[in-house]
Amino acid sequence: MEQLKQAIRTEGSVLSANVLKVDAFLNHRIDPVLMAAIGREFAERFREAGITKILTIETSGIAPALMAALELGVAVVFARKQKSLTMRDDLYVQKVYSFTKQVENEVTVSRKFLEKGDRVLIIDDFLAHGEAAFGLAKIVEEAGGAVAGIGIVIEKSFQNGAAKLQEAGYRVESLARIASLENNQVQFVEETIHA
Amino acid sequence: MEQLKQAIRTEGSVLSANVLKVDAFLNHRIDPVLMAAIGREFAERFREAGITKILTIETSGIAPALMAALELGVAVVFARKQKSLTMRDDLYVQKVYSFTKQVENEVTVSRKFLEKGDRVLIIDDFLAHGEAAFGLAKIVEEAGGAVAGIGIVIEKSFQNGAAKLQEAGYRVESLARIASLENNQVQFVEETIHA
Repeated sequence: MEQLKQAIRTEGSVLSANVLKVDAFLNHRIDPVLMAAIGREFAERFREAGITKILTIETSGIAPALMAALELGVAVVFARKQKSLTMRDDLYVQKVYSFTKQVENEVTVSRKFLEKGDRVLIIDDFLAHGEAAFGLAKIVEEAGGAVAGIGIVIEKSFQNGAAKLQEAGYRVESLARIASLENNQVQFVEETIHA
Repeated sequence: MEQLKQAIRTEGSVLSANVLKVDAFLNHRIDPVLMAAIGREFAERFREAGITKILTIETSGIAPALMAALELGVAVVFARKQKSLTMRDDLYVQKVYSFTKQVENEVTVSRKFLEKGDRVLIIDDFLAHGEAAFGLAKIVEEAGGAVAGIGIVIEKSFQNGAAKLQEAGYRVESLARIASLENNQVQFVEETIHA
């Protein structure tokens, strides 16, 4: 998605070979016009997938998920991240390890908001090792729904999340795919291919 | 705002005389059509206020703030809630006490996303004691901006936040104002007046 790649080029900053900071338009400041375009792009890619619900995870997945939901005419549910819980009878719970923050969170979704037969589009801001996406997919399946696809704003293709998700049979659509952040440079996958 | 009040009536649940649960359309599951209507309503009320930026706070403020930002043609910044911080040179920090959760959080905004001269609309999902709104307002003012208004989705008018904010000179626009949650009943302010 060219508009997104342009935003990454001009407003993103490479903090290390693993970390791209996009707090200028996605993770802290949000550009609503770009989010609307991202929502339309997700909707276009998954229009024929029979989506009944979008599942995302707080915090930075909410904006792109909401715009996609508006386009697709479905509701969004955002999973919560918590350290640990006492009351959990009414929740689906999955442990998700964050490599970036080196901490394990419990990701929870209220049982009443996922239904048997739901065809769920999982949306998240970043895909790195795939931990969050796998956790959300397990929750969908535990609820008796199907994962109709996984929509990612920025895929770090040099990490193995996308490959692992595809091996597991999931359809992954990433709007920007980053091949490398070496030497403080953002290299997109497409650029490498066409070079 | 009738559409919002209808959603509160049909999908909200009163947990106690102080707590209204709206996780069916705002705090966990999000209804994007209702959020778009909420965004339009905020935009209409603040159209002439010269808003240059919207400031909200994670997590549940993001959806209504994003839809209002799209309507007003400005960016959103969402403040982060954290327990405590070590690195903070580049952040505005305010302590905010949550009466509901009985915990003090630090609310932070990156210095680079607020500017001198900004006219900021603060948006949040709930207004109770006004702690979060006052914290965000202090951050705006510390940055040299002005608080052009405070837009609230659901005001618990039986608590004193709205009154305190108005006393302090802020314009508060709440889309639903709740007079009471006694006896497991949602009573709106308008209904009380017209009764």
